[in-house]
Amino acid sequence: MKHNNNNNSNTIIDAHKKIKNMEIRGAGRIGRAVASALKEYSLTIQNIENNEFKEKMIEAGDILKSARPTAVSLPNAVNYVLSGLNTNNPKENIILNAEEFIKSSSEATSKIGKIGSNRIKDGWTILTHCNSEAAISVIKTAHNSGKNIKVICTETRPRNQGYLTAKALADEGIDTTLIVDSAVRYHIKDVDIVVVGADAITSNGCLVNKIGSSQIALMAYERKIPFLTAAETYKFHPKTIIGETIEIEERAVGEIHEFEEKYKDKIKLRNPAFDITPSQYIDGIITEIGIIPPQGAWHIIEKYFGNVFKETL
Amino acid sequence: MKHNNNNNSNTIIDAHKKIKNMEIRGAGRIGRAVASALKEYSLTIQNIENNEFKEKMIEAGDILKSARPTAVSLPNAVNYVLSGLNTNNPKENIILNAEEFIKSSSEATSKIGKIGSNRIKDGWTILTHCNSEAAISVIKTAHNSGKNIKVICTETRPRNQGYLTAKALADEGIDTTLIVDSAVRYHIKDVDIVVVGADAITSNGCLVNKIGSSQIALMAYERKIPFLTAAETYKFHPKTIIGETIEIEERAVGEIHEFEEKYKDKIKLRNPAFDITPSQYIDGIITEIGIIPPQGAWHIIEKYFGNVFKETL
Amino acid sequence: MKHNNNNNSNTIIDAHKKIKNMEIRGAGRIGRAVASALKEYSLTIQNIENNEFKEKMIEAGDILKSARPTAVSLPNAVNYVLSGLNTNNPKENIILNAEEFIKSSSEATSKIGKIGSNRIKDGWTILTHCNSEAAISVIKTAHNSGKNIKVICTETRPRNQGYLTAKALADEGIDTTLIVDSAVRYHIKDVDIVVVGADAITSNGCLVNKIGSSQIALMAYERKIPFLTAAETYKFHPKTIIGETIEIEERAVGEIHEFEEKYKDKIKLRNPAFDITPSQYIDGIITEIGIIPPQGAWHIIEKYFGNVFKETL
Amino acid sequence: MKHNNNNNSNTIIDAHKKIKNMEIRGAGRIGRAVASALKEYSLTIQNIENNEFKEKMIEAGDILKSARPTAVSLPNAVNYVLSGLNTNNPKENIILNAEEFIKSSSEATSKIGKIGSNRIKDGWTILTHCNSEAAISVIKTAHNSGKNIKVICTETRPRNQGYLTAKALADEGIDTTLIVDSAVRYHIKDVDIVVVGADAITSNGCLVNKIGSSQIALMAYERKIPFLTAAETYKFHPKTIIGETIEIEERAVGEIHEFEEKYKDKIKLRNPAFDITPSQYIDGIITEIGIIPPQGAWHIIEKYFGNVFKETL
Amino acid sequence: MKHNNNNNSNTIIDAHKKIKNMEIRGAGRIGRAVASALKEYSLTIQNIENNEFKEKMIEAGDILKSARPTAVSLPNAVNYVLSGLNTNNPKENIILNAEEFIKSSSEATSKIGKIGSNRIKDGWTILTHCNSEAAISVIKTAHNSGKNIKVICTETRPRNQGYLTAKALADEGIDTTLIVDSAVRYHIKDVDIVVVGADAITSNGCLVNKIGSSQIALMAYERKIPFLTAAETYKFHPKTIIGETIEIEERAVGEIHEFEEKYKDKIKLRNPAFDITPSQYIDGIITEIGIIPPQGAWHIIEKYFGNVFKETL
Amino acid sequence: MKHNNNNNSNTIIDAHKKIKNMEIRGAGRIGRAVASALKEYSLTIQNIENNEFKEKMIEAGDILKSARPTAVSLPNAVNYVLSGLNTNNPKENIILNAEEFIKSSSEATSKIGKIGSNRIKDGWTILTHCNSEAAISVIKTAHNSGKNIKVICTETRPRNQGYLTAKALADEGIDTTLIVDSAVRYHIKDVDIVVVGADAITSNGCLVNKIGSSQIALMAYERKIPFLTAAETYKFHPKTIIGETIEIEERAVGEIHEFEEKYKDKIKLRNPAFDITPSQYIDGIITEIGIIPPQGAWHIIEKYFGNVFKETL
Repeated sequence: MKHNNNNNSNTIIDAHKKIKNMEIRGAGRIGRAVASALKEYSLTIQNIENNEFKEKMIEAGDILKSARPTAVSLPNAVNYVLSGLNTNNPKENIILNAEEFIKSSSEATSKIGKIGSNRIKDGWTILTHCNSEAAISVIKTAHNSGKNIKVICTETRPRNQGYLTAKALADEGIDTTLIVDSAVRYHIKDVDIVVVGADAITSNGCLVNKIGSSQIALMAYERKIPFLTAAETYKFHPKTIIGETIEIEERAVGEIHEFEEKYKDKIKLRNPAFDITPSQYIDGIITEIGIIPPQGAWHIIEKYFGNVFKETL
Repeated sequence: MKHNNNNNSNTIIDAHKKIKNMEIRGAGRIGRAVASALKEYSLTIQNIENNEFKEKMIEAGDILKSARPTAVSLPNAVNYVLSGLNTNNPKENIILNAEEFIKSSSEATSKIGKIGSNRIKDGWTILTHCNSEAAISVIKTAHNSGKNIKVICTETRPRNQGYLTAKALADEGIDTTLIVDSAVRYHIKDVDIVVVGADAITSNGCLVNKIGSSQIALMAYERKIPFLTAAETYKFHPKTIIGETIEIEERAVGEIHEFEEKYKDKIKLRNPAFDITPSQYIDGIITEIGIIPPQGAWHIIEKYFGNVFKETL
Repeated sequence: MKHNNNNNSNTIIDAHKKIKNMEIRGAGRIGRAVASALKEYSLTIQNIENNEFKEKMIEAGDILKSARPTAVSLPNAVNYVLSGLNTNNPKENIILNAEEFIKSSSEATSKIGKIGSNRIKDGWTILTHCNSEAAISVIKTAHNSGKNIKVICTETRPRNQGYLTAKALADEGIDTTLIVDSAVRYHIKDVDIVVVGADAITSNGCLVNKIGSSQIALMAYERKIPFLTAAETYKFHPKTIIGETIEIEERAVGEIHEFEEKYKDKIKLRNPAFDITPSQYIDGIITEIGIIPPQGAWHIIEKYFGNVFKETL
Repeated sequence: MKHNNNNNSNTIIDAHKKIKNMEIRGAGRIGRAVASALKEYSLTIQNIENNEFKEKMIEAGDILKSARPTAVSLPNAVNYVLSGLNTNNPKENIILNAEEFIKSSSEATSKIGKIGSNRIKDGWTILTHCNSEAAISVIKTAHNSGKNIKVICTETRPRNQGYLTAKALADEGIDTTLIVDSAVRYHIKDVDIVVVGADAITSNGCLVNKIGSSQIALMAYERKIPFLTAAETYKFHPKTIIGETIEIEERAVGEIHEFEEKYKDKIKLRNPAFDITPSQYIDGIITEIGIIPPQGAWHIIEKYFGNVFKETL
Repeated sequence: MKHNNNNNSNTIIDAHKKIKNMEIRGAGRIGRAVASALKEYSLTIQNIENNEFKEKMIEAGDILKSARPTAVSLPNAVNYVLSGLNTNNPKENIILNAEEFIKSSSEATSKIGKIGSNRIKDGWTILTHCNSEAAISVIKTAHNSGKNIKVICTETRPRNQGYLTAKALADEGIDTTLIVDSAVRYHIKDVDIVVVGADAITSNGCLVNKIGSSQIALMAYERKIPFLTAAETYKFHPKTIIGETIEIEERAVGEIHEFEEKYKDKIKLRNPAFDITPSQYIDGIITEIGIIPPQGAWHIIEKYFGNVFKETL
Repeated sequence: MKHNNNNNSNTIIDAHKKIKNMEIRGAGRIGRAVASALKEYSLTIQNIENNEFKEKMIEAGDILKSARPTAVSLPNAVNYVLSGLNTNNPKENIILNAEEFIKSSSEATSKIGKIGSNRIKDGWTILTHCNSEAAISVIKTAHNSGKNIKVICTETRPRNQGYLTAKALADEGIDTTLIVDSAVRYHIKDVDIVVVGADAITSNGCLVNKIGSSQIALMAYERKIPFLTAAETYKFHPKTIIGETIEIEERAVGEIHEFEEKYKDKIKLRNPAFDITPSQYIDGIITEIGIIPPQGAWHIIEKYFGNVFKETL
C-alpha cells in the first residue's frame, strides 16, 4: 500500500482493522462490512478521472482482502462490488453492487430456509451435524410451515456444537434427538434427508465443513438418502478455480482431551476442524438463489466473484 | 428344571449362579467356567446307562444356558462339550471336549495376535476402534516382532474406551495417535489396515461390535483398505443360523450427556451400544484357527457349535 | 383476476379455457398456444405507458399459468415470452420471443431426433420404455439415416404404451422386440444404449418419467450402458430450482386390475404414474439445443425460464 | 437301460413314467417320489452280492434321472439316497437315506417359514415377487407369530402370479398391496426386507428365479435393503459345480400378448421365464437347515448331493 | 468453394494447404495458424458491405475447416474468431478475437501448469500416462515451485511415449519411476494424484485420450484418488454437443508387433489409439481458465465455440 | 536334519536336490515329484514301530519343503500325503494318498478344461491374460467341443507371454486377436467372459497372478462380465490361513527396458511379477473338483492341506 494520507481512506483502514482483530466476524457480517466500506470510500473520491478512481478502488480492495486471507466471504464481497469498475459508470455501479450485496447477503439465510424447506416433506426425519445457521433455518422453516418433522442431531465432537443445535430446535418445539457421532450409520435407515451447513464450497462442487460431515455424506450415499448442504453464495471459494486448495485448520488438541502427565508426550492428538465432502456425495447446494447441483459451483463463482484470473495469472 | 436333589448337580447350579450374578464375566471366562462345570459334573455321574447320562448332561447344559441368554460364548461352550454325547464313549468325549475348549479358548487371544500380526507389514499405520483385547493382541504382536508401526485410536464415544487402548499401546512404546470418531474419514487416506474386535459374528458373516464400527468399515471399503475383525470362535453366534437376530442393547443415555432441567424432557437421547457391519465390508475374520472369509462363519458354527437345530426346530 | 372488460383480453381467457378443459393438450401444443395468445394480446394493447403494458402482460401470464398448474411447459412458455418485458422495447421483444418459442418448440422433436441419432451407431440395439415422441424421433432418424438398428420395447404396465411404440417402429420397418417390464435385466446385456422420453427435468438433473424408467436407468448404470433421455427444453421444471418437488400423480388403480368383490377391500393397489431417475444414472439429456449433462439443467432453466425468483422469493 | 424283465424294477419304471408325463410334479413331490421308489426297489433285491446290488441301484437312479432332466430335485434325491451305496450296509443306508429325504423335504417349507420369520421384525414391510410357497411360508409365519407386518406384491407379468400371492396373504388377514413390476423402485424406500422363492441355486450362490427377481435384488442392493431367497436344499443345483449352466426356458410368447394379424410377423416377442440374480446381491438363503450365505451353496451341494463328479468327469 | 481468383484469399489457401499436408501440426499451432490467417484475410477485404464481408469470412472459415476434419482445435479457432461477425464492428472484432485466441492459446500450457500445480502438495506422488505437454507442465511447475514430488510414468504401449515423459522429467531432476501399463493397480496405493493430458473433451465431460487412460481413471476411482486431465479449452469438442461421437482412430498394427509369416494371417491385431474416460471418473479438467468440473465442458463450448448449431441443424 | 546314513533317504535327498536346482520345475511336476518321493521312501522303512515311522516321514517332509520355500504346491503335496500318518494304517494310507495326489494333479488341467468350458457359450468372446496352461485348457476344450468362440489375448508386458498364448490358440484354429495391455477397457464391452490362470489362491479367496490380472478383474467387474480363474487345488496357499502374505517377487528391471547410459541412474524401474485380485472381483475358481466361489478357498485348504496349524501355532 502506497502512502496515502488522504483521510478518505480512513473508512477502508478502519474496516480492515476491525476485520483483522475480529471485532467484525462471521462470513456474512464480514462481507457486508467490506461492501459498505467500499461504497462509502467510493463516495469520497471526487473530481478524478476514471483511471485514478479505478486504481484507488482496486487498492482499497486489496487492503481489505489482506485483513483475513482465509475468510472466503471477504474476496467475494470485494470482487462482487468492484466488478462495477468494468462498466461505463463505475462509481454508480460500485454503489449499486455494494447495496445489492448487502441486501442479498442479509436475506440469504432466510431465503435458504424457504428454498430448502420446500425439499422437506411432512413426516420426514432430518439428520444434521454441527450447528449451522443456514441448516437450522431450513429445518425451522419446514417446521413453521406446519410440517410434522423429526430431527436427529449429532453431538459433533470435540466442541459439541450439536448440543446448541438440539437446544435451538427444542426451543422451537421440534421433536429432537441427540446421538453420538459414531451412531449415525445405526440410525440412518430412519433418516429421510440430511441437511448440513458449509464453511466453503470449492469450484468443483466439494463441501468444506465441520469434521465428520464427509463420513455422514458417505453413509447417506450408501443408502441413496439425499444429502444437501445449505450455503450462501458468498461461501463459494473463488481461488479453488485456479487450483488452490483450502487449508484444513488443525485446532488446539486440548479441545479433545488433556492427558495426564504420564501420557502427555506418549500419545499424540490430532484435531482437524474440517473435512472435505466430494461432490458425488452431494445431491444439491441450497443457496439463496436456488438449489444448484454441486457441479454448478464454478459457474456461480465465475459469474459473481470471478475476476480472480485477472489478479493471479 | 426338574427337582434334582442329587448333590452332584451342585457344580452346575453353582456355575449358573456365578454367571447369572456376573461373578464370572467376559466371554472367554464364561465359556471356560461352563466347560469346566460340565466336565466335573460328568465325572460325578456313575453306574448309569448312557441314555440317563445323556439326559442329565443335556439338562445340565440347559440350566447353564439359561444363566445369561445373551452371552454368545455360553451356548457355544455347552454345545461344543455336549457334542461328545453323540459318540460311543460319551463321558470320555465330554471330558476331552471340555479340556479342548478350555485350552483352546485360553490360548485364543495370543494365537489371534500371532496370526493377525502376520498381516501387518513394516511401516504400516493401523486404525482401531474401542478397546478390544484381541485387536490389541494383534497390534502388540506386530510391534513386538520388530515391525515399525503406527496406530490411530478413535476415542469411541460415549464411554471413551479408545483412551484405554491408546494408553495400553503407548505403554508398549507404540507410536499412538488419538482422534475423535468424526475424524476417521479425514485420516483414513494414511491408514494401511483397520483391525477391530468383535462382540459377536453372525452366521452370514456380519460383525456385531461397538457402535461406530460399521461406519469405519464403510470408510475403509470406500478406499479398499483392508478391514479385519479379531474374533475368537466362541464369538460366532449359533442362533443366527436359524434367523435369530441379535438384539442391539440401548444403554443408559446418561452415558452421553445429562441435559439441564429445561431440556430434560425436550431433547431425546439414543445410546445403542453396538452396530452391525455387513460381511461385504469385512476382508477377513482373524480367529484362533486362522483367518477366514466372513462367509465362512456359518461353516465354523455348523462344525463346532451347531446342534442348535436339534433343539429348536 | 381483476375485472377486465376490455375485449383485448379475450385471447387470454380463450386460451386459458381451452388449456383448462384440455381442448389444447400436450406439452408442446400448450406452450405454443400460450406464446401465441401472449403475442396476440400484446398487439391489442396500444398507446399506453410501458408500466401499464408490463402489468397487463404479467397479469395475462398469471391467468394462463393458472390454467393447469402441473403442466411444466406452461410457465416456461409464459416466462420465456415475458422475459421481453425487461428490455427497452418490451412489445417488440415479446412478439419476437413468442415467435421464437413457437418456432423452436415446433422444431424441437425433429432436432432432438437428429441430435440423438448421432449417438446411435450402426448395428446397435436400443432399449426404450413407454411411448415418447422424442425418443421415437431419435430412433426413427437413426433408422432413416441408414443405420441397421434393433429396438427392444418394454410393454410399460399398467397402460401398455410400449405396444404403441412397438407398432410405430414396426410400421417404419425397424426390427422391434417387445418384452415384459420384468425382463429388462435379462436382455440388457445385449443393449448398446437406452433412450427414453421425459415428463419433466428437475434443476439438479433428475428425470421425471413414466413409472419404471428409474429402474431401467439403474440397470443400465450397473453395466455402464449409456442412458439418455430426450427432452425438449420446455420440459425443464423451473420451480425445482427453489426446491419445489414434483408431485407424483397416483392414477386410478383400475388401470392395473379390478379385483373380484371378495378382495376389493382386502388388497390395496398403488398406481403411481411416474418415478424419478437420479442424475448420476443419466449420461445426457438430448434437447433441441444439444446434448447436455444432467447437471447443466439448472443453467438452462436459469437462462431461459428463470424469472421464477422474482415471483416467489 | 439293459433289458431287465425282473418285476422288481416296476417301481422304478412306474415312477419314471409318472414324473415324465407330469402326473407327479413340483420339486418336492418329485424328489419324494424318487426317494420312495428307490427305497422300495432296494427292498425287492434279495440274496445278491453287494456289487450287483450297487449296479442295479445305480441303473435305477439313472432311469429316474432321465425322466425330466431339468428338474433339479430329481438328481438331488437320487444322489442323496444312493450315497448309501458307499457304506458298509448299502441297503440299510439306502432305506435310511430315503426316509430321511422324504421327512426332511416334507418339513422343509414349514421349517423355512419358521427360520425366515425370525428375520422379520414387528412393523416391517416385506416385498415379494411371483408366488413362492416357501416365501409365503416365511411371511405367514411372521404374521401368525403376532408381528404386525405389511406386504407389497408385484403382479409378476406375464402370468400374474403375484395376484395369487396377494390373495393368499389377504386370506390370512395380512395387510397386502399389489403394484406393477415397474413400480418396485418407487416403493422400495418403504420396504424393510425382500423375500422371494427360488427355482434353483447355483454352486456359486446365484439364484435362478422368476423373471424380474434379479432387478428387484439390484434395487434392494442399491439401498442396502436385505434380499433373502427361501430355498429348500433340494433346489441347490449339483451340476453347476462342474460348470454347467442352467438353461433359461423361453415360454410361449402368447403368454405376453397376441398381436393383431398385421403385426404378427413384424414385432417379435421374447418370454424368458427366469433370470439369474448374482450372489453379491443376496444377503442369505433361507433353507430348512438354516440361513446360509450364498457362497455356502457349493458346500451344501458337495455335502449332500455331490457325487456328480464320479459320474461326469 | 467457388472460384475466387482474388489474391486476397491466398492467405487462406496457403494455411489450408500447410495444415492439410501437416506442415503445420499440433492442436495449438493449427489453431493459431487459422486465427492468424483469418485476421490477415479480413484485413485485405476493403470497401465492401458487411454482408459481403460476412459471406467471405464464412467461406474462408469453411475452407480452413476442411483442411483436417478431425483436428478439434481447427473449428474451435474458426468459430472463436468468426463470432465477431455477429457484432456491430465485425472486422474490428474478428481481428480482436484472432489476437485473443493467439495470445490465449500460446499461454495456455503455462497457465495450466500454474493452475494444476496448485493442486499438488509437497511430498506427493503423481502418476501420469503417455506424453502430454500440459500434464508435464503441471508436474514441472510443481517441482519448480519447490515441492518435493515423485512421478510414476507408464510406458504407454505400443509407442512407448512414457519413456519420453520419464526422460523429460528426469532431465528436470524429478524423482521418476517407469512401470509397465499392467502394473498401475499394483502401484496406485502409493499414488496421491493422477494427471494426464487430453486429445479432446466431449460436451458431457468425457475425456478422449491415449489408449489406457480410462482404465487408469477407473483404478484411481476405485480408491478415490483424484484424477485430473489437463486440457486447453480449444480441445473441447463442439460437435459433441449435437451428439456427434469422436471416431477412435485405429493405427497400424505394426506398431504393436510384426508376427512371423506363419501367424500373419492367423492372429489379428487391434490398435486403437484412444479410449474414452467417462465423466464420473474425472475430478476436474485443468484448463487455462481454471479447473472446471467435467460437467462444465458443455458450457465452455457453448460460450466460446458454440455456433455449431447455426451450421448444422 | 539329523545325520541319517541310511541309504533309504536317498530318494528324499535326490528329490530335494532336483527341486532346489530347478531340474524339476512347474507347480504340478514339483508336487508329483514330492508325492512320489514320499511314497518310495515310505516303502523302504521296514519293521519299525509306527512312531518311528511317523517321525521319519515328517522329517522327510520337512526336507522336501525346504527345497523351494515359495513353491505353493510343495507343502500342499507333503501335507496331502502325510495326512495318512493320522490313520490306523499310516504306511498304506501314505502310499494311497501319494497315488491319489499324482493321479489327481496329472488330470487336473484337463478336468479344469472340461469344467471351465461348460461355462462358455457358443458365440462368446473370451479375454485371457498371460500364458496359463489351465486357462488355455478351458478355451481349447470349449473350441474342441464345437463352440464357435473368439479370444482376445493381452500381450502381457514385460515378458509378452500373451504372444505364446495367441500362437497356441491360433495353432488350434481359434479366432485370436492380440491387444496391448492398455487396450483392455476399450475392448471389454465385446467380451463375454474373462478366464485367467493362477499362481496362488489365498485362504480368503484372493488371486495371486501375473501383474495386470487385478486391473482386468476390476474392468470386468465394472460391467458385470464374469471373471474366472483356473486353478488346480494345489495352488491354494495354506499359510495364508495363518495370515502369512505372499511376497510379490520383483524381477529384473532389464525385462522392461535398458535405458541409455545417461538415464541409467536417473530413471528408476519397477518390475513386480504378480498382483493380487480381491475376491469380490472373482466370480468363481475353476478347480479340478469343480467351480467354487472364492470364499470357499479356505475350506479347500482346511480339508486337503490344512495341518499347517499343528506345525505353526
